[in-house]
Amino acid sequence: MTQTHAAPSKTDNATDRVYNFSAGPGVLPESVLEQIQADCWNIDGSGIGVLEHSHRGKVVDRIFAEAEADCRKVGNIGDDYAVLFLTGGATTQCYQVPANLLPDGARADYLQTGKWAEDSVENARLYGDINLAFDGQASVYDHLPMSDAEINHSDDAVYLQYTSNNTIYGTEFSFVPKPKNPDAFVVCDASSNIYSKPFDVSPFGVVYAGAQKNLGPAGTTVVIIRKDLLERKPRTLPEMLDYSVHAAKGSRYNTPPVFPIYVVGLVFKWIMSEGGLGVMAERNERKAKHIYDVLDASSFFKPHARKDCRSMMNVTFRCPTPELDAKFLEEAGARGMKTLKGHRSTGGMRASIYNAFPEAGCKALADFMKDFESKNG
Amino acid sequence: MTQTHAAPSKTDNATDRVYNFSAGPGVLPESVLEQIQADCWNIDGSGIGVLEHSHRGKVVDRIFAEAEADCRKVGNIGDDYAVLFLTGGATTQCYQVPANLLPDGARADYLQTGKWAEDSVENARLYGDINLAFDGQASVYDHLPMSDAEINHSDDAVYLQYTSNNTIYGTEFSFVPKPKNPDAFVVCDASSNIYSKPFDVSPFGVVYAGAQKNLGPAGTTVVIIRKDLLERKPRTLPEMLDYSVHAAKGSRYNTPPVFPIYVVGLVFKWIMSEGGLGVMAERNERKAKHIYDVLDASSFFKPHARKDCRSMMNVTFRCPTPELDAKFLEEAGARGMKTLKGHRSTGGMRASIYNAFPEAGCKALADFMKDFESKNG
Repeated sequence: MTQTHAAPSKTDNATDRVYNFSAGPGVLPESVLEQIQADCWNIDGSGIGVLEHSHRGKVVDRIFAEAEADCRKVGNIGDDYAVLFLTGGATTQCYQVPANLLPDGARADYLQTGKWAEDSVENARLYGDINLAFDGQASVYDHLPMSDAEINHSDDAVYLQYTSNNTIYGTEFSFVPKPKNPDAFVVCDASSNIYSKPFDVSPFGVVYAGAQKNLGPAGTTVVIIRKDLLERKPRTLPEMLDYSVHAAKGSRYNTPPVFPIYVVGLVFKWIMSEGGLGVMAERNERKAKHIYDVLDASSFFKPHARKDCRSMMNVTFRCPTPELDAKFLEEAGARGMKTLKGHRSTGGMRASIYNAFPEAGCKALADFMKDFESKNG
Repeated sequence: MTQTHAAPSKTDNATDRVYNFSAGPGVLPESVLEQIQADCWNIDGSGIGVLEHSHRGKVVDRIFAEAEADCRKVGNIGDDYAVLFLTGGATTQCYQVPANLLPDGARADYLQTGKWAEDSVENARLYGDINLAFDGQASVYDHLPMSDAEINHSDDAVYLQYTSNNTIYGTEFSFVPKPKNPDAFVVCDASSNIYSKPFDVSPFGVVYAGAQKNLGPAGTTVVIIRKDLLERKPRTLPEMLDYSVHAAKGSRYNTPPVFPIYVVGLVFKWIMSEGGLGVMAERNERKAKHIYDVLDASSFFKPHARKDCRSMMNVTFRCPTPELDAKFLEEAGARGMKTLKGHRSTGGMRASIYNAFPEAGCKALADFMKDFESKNG
């Protein structure tokens, strides 16, 4: 009594795709997209598509178990950490972190290095006493502290929170800040550079990342949290907001966003099949170098980020005038290089070149930049 | 400079699919799945797949505008209501509703008609004084109030909250409760029967539904809220939890779960292409009747829900013994009728037959039930 369907019109994967420099949601590996196309119709030979499976059934059991195990394998995350797949984006972590970990009125140090850090500070102030241990706002966040000497650490901070890569400004930390209080832990919003290079989780109490930049589509947030912190519980929260509830239930306390988590799982497998984080890092450095080499040699383009803290994930630059920026974007678009427009707070261009972005696209952009400068410089 | 790809291995939609009676995430229309397969590679001829588009770009502008407009068209929702696409499932609404709408210590009436209602009550008690105006727990939620006379309304309730269809037990309200307090509004968790039949929004202050039963995949929650309620703001909340913030930002305050919202938009278009909610209701009544007719004529199967409040969406029943239940499930599975196992609190079977579930599957189940009874009765 199984239904059999005649083959409907097939998906035509020969359709052109462009170089997608989107800052997020961003490009995904094409092999992942092809797997999704197949699994949306029928996954694991179950006769049911991945979107239509109960979150309590065996197929989703497998998907979730593999996504967690592969997250641990890729990042070398041990059993002393819980790996959670939550909802509400990194924006929800802006309040979920202090709600779960900062007692009323207690101190936490925040490094204000961009828009996401600002949001974290604003939310954390609903719960505790927030010390801006670094503030880059005056220079439109064009640089970061280069060492702990540039951070105004508190003696009594419960934790220190920072954003490891600042998507809008194109800055990336080159070190993990070390709190002055030996009992303090570090919280990292790694949304835009998680798993872009080898990763040591041990300095961190919490690492979180919205999936839609380096890990998958929008709709889930990976939260890696040291298990002893799950017991802090400084206040009564709705169970949905309590990390320990999600940890106890394997991220299935309620109906989770199955599909985004499934795609993140496919991306972990893709990273491993490519050779892991060492290969990602080499490739990402090579990719970024194509573009930074042009910027370094140019008297025409102006980078936004200071050279010593620039990002391997988001390259930000401007032409001499907004009119030339517009011309650059239009001509790049005509050459199949899309979504290069910078954030309104920096203007100009932003090339987001996450793990799944192909090196050929970086070369194409670098070549076009040189050509554009020679014609307009 | 556009990349051109040779056609990779195509998705083979001829693969068998089964009758999927899952209670949620549940079955989706096959035409929607085929659209998803195409759009994951390249949507709107953009050269970028739906998962990879910026939530601030033109393609997502179109998707969100159409999803909202089509939600309004299908449900006849006027401009006096906001239509939001949020995250965290209906479970998040259990606390987001009272956090946004119930002042400290104020009264709300809750109808405890199942597991979801229990969760709502538990969360609301963190905020206000909750009156259980109906409680069906003693009879394992096998029935509902049939009129306001069976509801212990408070004089001073700010709102009355109920669950219009109880997935686990297979019960469905046949009327909208009317609060005694003329200033009170009604809040409805319609997760498992939204848009299964014609809908009049006017009695409601808030209607919400996790998408994964009648509207799409897991990962977004539709919240329809009367606009004047957005201004209540009885307490300071993180912006992510504030309905008025999401309303002001068109559900794009932060990076939203683009893909689940996109699929919900496709499902709205599918409902319209099928003829709208009137057609859905006729079809759903006919579908359920195939199965209920067998139950009504049977001395073998025992329905869980009382006859006068049974659901058009979830049909719950048991065999005379748990051993026969297991045999039924095994034999049904072998005939391509899957995910029929009932919830642990009711045992037996549950046939979830949401909008996208085909009538042929209901007939097939009814035929199998008669056959099974004749052989085992």
